[in-house]
Amino acid sequence: MDFDTRYKQYLTVVENWLEGVLPEVRLSQDELPEKRIYEAMRYSLMAGGKRIRPVLSLAVCDLIHGDEKELIPFAGAIELIHTYSLIHDDLPCMDNDDYRRGKLTNHKVFGEAMAVLAGDGLLNLAFEIMLKETMKDDNKNYSRMKTAYMISVSSGVKGMIGGQVIDMESEKAEISYNVLCRMHKKKTGALIRASVLAPAILFNTEKNIVDKLEIYAENIGLAFQIKDDILDFEGDSRVTGKLTGSDAANNKSTFVSILGIAKAKELLKTSVENAVKALDGMENSEFLTQIAHYISERNK
Amino acid sequence: MDFDTRYKQYLTVVENWLEGVLPEVRLSQDELPEKRIYEAMRYSLMAGGKRIRPVLSLAVCDLIHGDEKELIPFAGAIELIHTYSLIHDDLPCMDNDDYRRGKLTNHKVFGEAMAVLAGDGLLNLAFEIMLKETMKDDNKNYSRMKTAYMISVSSGVKGMIGGQVIDMESEKAEISYNVLCRMHKKKTGALIRASVLAPAILFNTEKNIVDKLEIYAENIGLAFQIKDDILDFEGDSRVTGKLTGSDAANNKSTFVSILGIAKAKELLKTSVENAVKALDGMENSEFLTQIAHYISERNK
Repeated sequence: MDFDTRYKQYLTVVENWLEGVLPEVRLSQDELPEKRIYEAMRYSLMAGGKRIRPVLSLAVCDLIHGDEKELIPFAGAIELIHTYSLIHDDLPCMDNDDYRRGKLTNHKVFGEAMAVLAGDGLLNLAFEIMLKETMKDDNKNYSRMKTAYMISVSSGVKGMIGGQVIDMESEKAEISYNVLCRMHKKKTGALIRASVLAPAILFNTEKNIVDKLEIYAENIGLAFQIKDDILDFEGDSRVTGKLTGSDAANNKSTFVSILGIAKAKELLKTSVENAVKALDGMENSEFLTQIAHYISERNK
Repeated sequence: MDFDTRYKQYLTVVENWLEGVLPEVRLSQDELPEKRIYEAMRYSLMAGGKRIRPVLSLAVCDLIHGDEKELIPFAGAIELIHTYSLIHDDLPCMDNDDYRRGKLTNHKVFGEAMAVLAGDGLLNLAFEIMLKETMKDDNKNYSRMKTAYMISVSSGVKGMIGGQVIDMESEKAEISYNVLCRMHKKKTGALIRASVLAPAILFNTEKNIVDKLEIYAENIGLAFQIKDDILDFEGDSRVTGKLTGSDAANNKSTFVSILGIAKAKELLKTSVENAVKALDGMENSEFLTQIAHYISERNK
């Protein structure tokens, strides 16, 4: 099966699951005020996007012969967490972005207050879903809890939120290359790593495979961010759906601003190579290799 | 032991636990950017307040002879969730409050962006803590998961966040008494109910006790909100730490605005009576009875 077909298959699994989490709202007349937050949460959650995180989870799940149905609530919860972080990130007091994936951002459609609450609601829902999963009547709850806990640490102040903070604080002054790397390891890297490791933890994969997946995850996380910075620098805004040059306009430290475009592209190449090398000798890893290349070659 | 002494004992347990969750930050030089969010989270979490939610949990824990050490991470997680909701609630795009508990609100000290992230961080941390608890090596994890799940539903869009949404939407137009009640049942009631029920679920309390505690919780939740509205109407701002009359100035529907002050006070009295009645014949319930009275008699 070629890469696009397989990606689309995973994407369908993800979209269907997400669709079921927040179905079109059917509330009673009495519940009309609440309707708006379901709409706001749904607006951002169903706004498309690459779904790279849950797709990665599903691909690793296949690699280690895990049960997709068992995995999807955790993979989906990560997408919910990712979506909430985008909503809050776009707020006027944060990045103040009007467009995301070519559509108006959440607060532009629903107002700032609702966008804050929709973000809160999605984060909370991610944990509701994972906690519900851990309450099944079988002997696999311990792995589920470990998976949910790992995801919670990845999305918290030691992970994604911590990365956001470095990002914000770094706008005040130029940062070192080391701080830039730590920022992205947390901001983007933590959830990508969580996506790759979730199936490994859930299905108790042996340690030497987990170690390899971790190196893979860290390298594609890095590649993903460098590519984002490159796209912001020279991407086609009609394709990316974002304004080109916004990082520079906001005086943001990026791999391009700190290393220059040539070195940034070199580092992108090395990261992809390191990711691919980590999978060496692993059966069934073709799709993960392709994803690493896809991350560096995408144009949005 | 008199009410104040016992309340203070519980409060000490809570404050000590919270102190351990977010100790004064000792980060390496390299991690300085992250320092700010720990400070922001700590600022609001350690800003005092009545801690009524975890105190209620500890009191119920005693009533049913539960293990306080087992309970406190869940009771504390509820306080973290409550604190995050206050930070987001105070934001300029929400209630736009400059003061809370007599201190500047989070965004006034740390800026709006950090306040959003500090709130996100506290919500996330609450789940990290509860999930970590569920991973102990004994046979009680199922009750822990049920407790964490119940708390997650209480704080989500079906609970507290949903109540916030009704509150926001209701500012656009006057709401009915029924909608007002549903709003508060979710906005304030859901976490108070969760605080009372957490120990009952954690320690597998028999159903007839849980049912009584639920009626108690719903009535003190209602009483708590009516009292809040009354304090906003006629409280002493030097004692409450909030501006008196801000609900009226913001055209907010409250128990006072909809029922009038006399009927609001009558409903407050009835709620307390109903709460106390629910505990009828329950051993050791004296402190819970006193809390019900305390809620209606407090001046802040």
